[in-house]
Amino acid sequence: MVDYQTIIDKIVANSKEATERGVIASYIPELANISLHKFGIHILDADRKTYSAGEALEGFSIQSISKVLALAFSFSLVGDELWKRVDVEPSGDPFNHLSLLELENGIPRNPFINAGALVIADVLVSHLENPKEEFLRFVQELANDSSIRYNEKVALSEKRTGFKNYAAANLLKSYGNLRNDVDSVLDLYFYQCSLEMNCKQLTDAFYIFMNHGTCLREKSYLNLTQVKRINALMLTCGFYDEAGEFAFEVGLPGKSGVGGGIVALLPNTYCVATWSPGLNPKGNSKLGMAALEELTTKTGHSIF
Amino acid sequence: MVDYQTIIDKIVANSKEATERGVIASYIPELANISLHKFGIHILDADRKTYSAGEALEGFSIQSISKVLALAFSFSLVGDELWKRVDVEPSGDPFNHLSLLELENGIPRNPFINAGALVIADVLVSHLENPKEEFLRFVQELANDSSIRYNEKVALSEKRTGFKNYAAANLLKSYGNLRNDVDSVLDLYFYQCSLEMNCKQLTDAFYIFMNHGTCLREKSYLNLTQVKRINALMLTCGFYDEAGEFAFEVGLPGKSGVGGGIVALLPNTYCVATWSPGLNPKGNSKLGMAALEELTTKTGHSIF
Amino acid sequence: MVDYQTIIDKIVANSKEATERGVIASYIPELANISLHKFGIHILDADRKTYSAGEALEGFSIQSISKVLALAFSFSLVGDELWKRVDVEPSGDPFNHLSLLELENGIPRNPFINAGALVIADVLVSHLENPKEEFLRFVQELANDSSIRYNEKVALSEKRTGFKNYAAANLLKSYGNLRNDVDSVLDLYFYQCSLEMNCKQLTDAFYIFMNHGTCLREKSYLNLTQVKRINALMLTCGFYDEAGEFAFEVGLPGKSGVGGGIVALLPNTYCVATWSPGLNPKGNSKLGMAALEELTTKTGHSIF
Amino acid sequence: MVDYQTIIDKIVANSKEATERGVIASYIPELANISLHKFGIHILDADRKTYSAGEALEGFSIQSISKVLALAFSFSLVGDELWKRVDVEPSGDPFNHLSLLELENGIPRNPFINAGALVIADVLVSHLENPKEEFLRFVQELANDSSIRYNEKVALSEKRTGFKNYAAANLLKSYGNLRNDVDSVLDLYFYQCSLEMNCKQLTDAFYIFMNHGTCLREKSYLNLTQVKRINALMLTCGFYDEAGEFAFEVGLPGKSGVGGGIVALLPNTYCVATWSPGLNPKGNSKLGMAALEELTTKTGHSIF
Repeated sequence: MVDYQTIIDKIVANSKEATERGVIASYIPELANISLHKFGIHILDADRKTYSAGEALEGFSIQSISKVLALAFSFSLVGDELWKRVDVEPSGDPFNHLSLLELENGIPRNPFINAGALVIADVLVSHLENPKEEFLRFVQELANDSSIRYNEKVALSEKRTGFKNYAAANLLKSYGNLRNDVDSVLDLYFYQCSLEMNCKQLTDAFYIFMNHGTCLREKSYLNLTQVKRINALMLTCGFYDEAGEFAFEVGLPGKSGVGGGIVALLPNTYCVATWSPGLNPKGNSKLGMAALEELTTKTGHSIF
Repeated sequence: MVDYQTIIDKIVANSKEATERGVIASYIPELANISLHKFGIHILDADRKTYSAGEALEGFSIQSISKVLALAFSFSLVGDELWKRVDVEPSGDPFNHLSLLELENGIPRNPFINAGALVIADVLVSHLENPKEEFLRFVQELANDSSIRYNEKVALSEKRTGFKNYAAANLLKSYGNLRNDVDSVLDLYFYQCSLEMNCKQLTDAFYIFMNHGTCLREKSYLNLTQVKRINALMLTCGFYDEAGEFAFEVGLPGKSGVGGGIVALLPNTYCVATWSPGLNPKGNSKLGMAALEELTTKTGHSIF
Repeated sequence: MVDYQTIIDKIVANSKEATERGVIASYIPELANISLHKFGIHILDADRKTYSAGEALEGFSIQSISKVLALAFSFSLVGDELWKRVDVEPSGDPFNHLSLLELENGIPRNPFINAGALVIADVLVSHLENPKEEFLRFVQELANDSSIRYNEKVALSEKRTGFKNYAAANLLKSYGNLRNDVDSVLDLYFYQCSLEMNCKQLTDAFYIFMNHGTCLREKSYLNLTQVKRINALMLTCGFYDEAGEFAFEVGLPGKSGVGGGIVALLPNTYCVATWSPGLNPKGNSKLGMAALEELTTKTGHSIF
Repeated sequence: MVDYQTIIDKIVANSKEATERGVIASYIPELANISLHKFGIHILDADRKTYSAGEALEGFSIQSISKVLALAFSFSLVGDELWKRVDVEPSGDPFNHLSLLELENGIPRNPFINAGALVIADVLVSHLENPKEEFLRFVQELANDSSIRYNEKVALSEKRTGFKNYAAANLLKSYGNLRNDVDSVLDLYFYQCSLEMNCKQLTDAFYIFMNHGTCLREKSYLNLTQVKRINALMLTCGFYDEAGEFAFEVGLPGKSGVGGGIVALLPNTYCVATWSPGLNPKGNSKLGMAALEELTTKTGHSIF
């Protein structure tokens, strides 16, 4: 029997002593002001037991982690039609610098590069009457927590400065791979990225991916094949230009965000979320990566 | 208890009826003459029990599968120094068409694109007195089978026509990331790709990757971390431009070759090799992919 | 003494018999409705004598030809500061398909690819109080013709569908190479491209480039070095992906537009404009190119 | 009447005082040892009068200037068939760093990037019995000087280190755009680049391009259209990544080499060669560019 609590207590203790903590994302003022010393970790296992340590209940900007939730929602709405508009292969490019290059034929490489996430947002805008409200409700339902909110300040900040996303959306539009107008799609996208959640809420929301498509509230959104597809995408494309390194160190499907959050999961076994706002040069949480590496090594749960 | 034999017998039965079998690689005359109806599968489990069906004992050209064996050998010789000269991330590019583009700074994206495999071959040429002989002996020892041979005709055929590999090697050389002369490196590379092995020999040779770095003959070449690195590389980069698709369908570390072979493994559990020479448009064995998908679904051994 | 009138009468006669007339640009409805049989040519020489044939007085959408006029205006306002924000070298890329790629460091290759023209428009927006009005007045003054107008329908049509230009502008903005907001810059850009002028008005406006920087009204906007710079840019970058071909066939500085216009000039000697709306596959007027080739051959005025 | 001698005497006087002289190409030891203080200039006019100043009679490695001579020879042998295998447009890329990228479809952008020059060399190898001997004789005949020689040491030096050229040749071969074996083509190419000529010999050899295709010995190799094509190529593609700058500063067709030579010409008027081994960051002779700019300004012979 794995003693999760002891392991994560040790991880938190180690994290307190870490001197190299990475660099906080500064392109949005709202992210730049977080303390570099925050660290939280939370585990939810298949029996719904939870283990918590550090600032696991403090909310942060989930940013790109939201791409998995938006993918799940749109996948549940349109099924495999989705893959006509976005591919499922790793990109080999940093997360946004060159992602535009991959659009030559208008089909983004995968749903987790920004261009791909914009196509996903476009699908939601097409199928939902009030995209922002309904997406928020979807996340609240997955996490069984109606207190989850967008951070309007963060959303508006990105709206003012997210020129590369505007560029990507317009390029997609020029290829006919954006059905709605650019502003509606970006509006949903910037709000979706601004979601504030804590480590506990993240594991609750991602429970669906370790539980065959059925969420905490026992509602089934995805079938097994669909969950497998999303998990495979997380494993191969979930960490920007560091997917190979994460697969090696952690060996679990997961997704990171520039807010410093990471969520990862072992199907049928557990889901874990970490938060430490300092990023490594590739844009992933430095201490979060280390924590997950330690966790999977100690639990023996890596797939390799 | 999983009944491997029943599963693979069914797979072979299915394969006989398959009408869409893919297309045989035709760029080397020696590969072009194989019958499209060949199909073999072999399993070696952690208890060293074996399960066989179809043409599991008929040899074929392992081609790119050899890149894993060469990587293992060079990794055992120089350790993590290797990663200064080749990266560990998926490339997002087809297997050789654009691989040159990734050399701008002279560091190939991973050891399984051709440019990366040439760097690995260069390491072997630097550290071995008789590279071809010693590499062959290494593979024979891993597989515990001294009958394994290079196919000289295949090697010479590639030497005559492999202009893209010559281009890649010269480009690496221009960046100073090839220490030996181009011809020596390519000589080893073309021979290594020409190795003839059957499905049984492949599972025997790859046993080391499911067995923590210790081969069938109980000799330990790699430590656990090194094996984990190689397995992670297979999972994220082992299938050309179809790594994401393979991760989804099969969910195991593995490697394919244009000769129609695929080998895959679940650490501590089993290693499986398939052979069906017809390739899908991305260069992976069409029926082999399907067989592995069926196997992991029926055994429940996929990681997702 | 060259007999321009005889030459251009012959050119017009030939053009009437041409069966292969190219294809009309169809991406804007307003351009698509022009008759493929229109053909006009007009010459203005250094003594201000004029020679006219065909529909030389019928207005058309000058489109990219406006980039030279905008460049002249911004160059007169900021001088060589301009070259910190846009380069002066040919791009080797089609006119808009890949122009984004050239922005990696945010500096467009030259002022005539779309990204470069957007930087020029940005300069005008920064320095003018009413950019659209003042640019129009500048063109009217150059051409000594206050009847020149924007075509609002064309401008609004491009505003609705010019997603690649929005993408380029946002990408420039993300690199800090657009000082004003994207919409203001694109507003000027789309209006500038929508200018309606006829062949006579074009030669009048471009007289400044054959006359050392002094326009028809004797007002001096540019010095000799500046004119030389603009003429060199026209020669090396004025014809999308066909600059080399135009240099060979015509051997004069010039600029084309997808409305079917071309203007070219020999310093101190003459300026010529042609209009034929059918384009060749590279986006340049098919009969216009042929006409200029015939003209320079017959006058012996090519530089080669 | 232009007084060439006075102008070039002044140019040489200025050059002696220049403190910023650029950097000598160091990738070949034989080039690296030249004194940075060498400077020569030579003019041959349409009446075959000559004007000389500085070290105009000292030989140097003409390097890429040879590409024009090889183009002329192959063009005279196969005519417009040539353009099926190499394009005529500027490349927008530095002279060899990224030239490989332009080969995606196997057709180099123009005959003056290295890949294009290799296709030209391939044509010569196909059509000549003793390519090196016959090409040397062709150059000797153009220049009416049988003392012109290859520099074997330079040729062998490049053969040992020219890995990017080997890469380019192999890539061309993989696309089927090299008919002969890679080594034969590169052998001619390296020898051709190693030609030693002085400024006088260069103007004599390039006399054919200002004289409608008829060389000094009155032998006609090219027709007028062919000469025009080559001159247009020099103007738009003759200066690596600085074609636009050269067109602006000098305004004449010309070609530079990393040995520090530049040759330029005004059809029917004169041909000029300069030599100063220090290069600017784009690989063109720094003082040579300045000298030609001064010459064309003072003679008023620029085309703009």
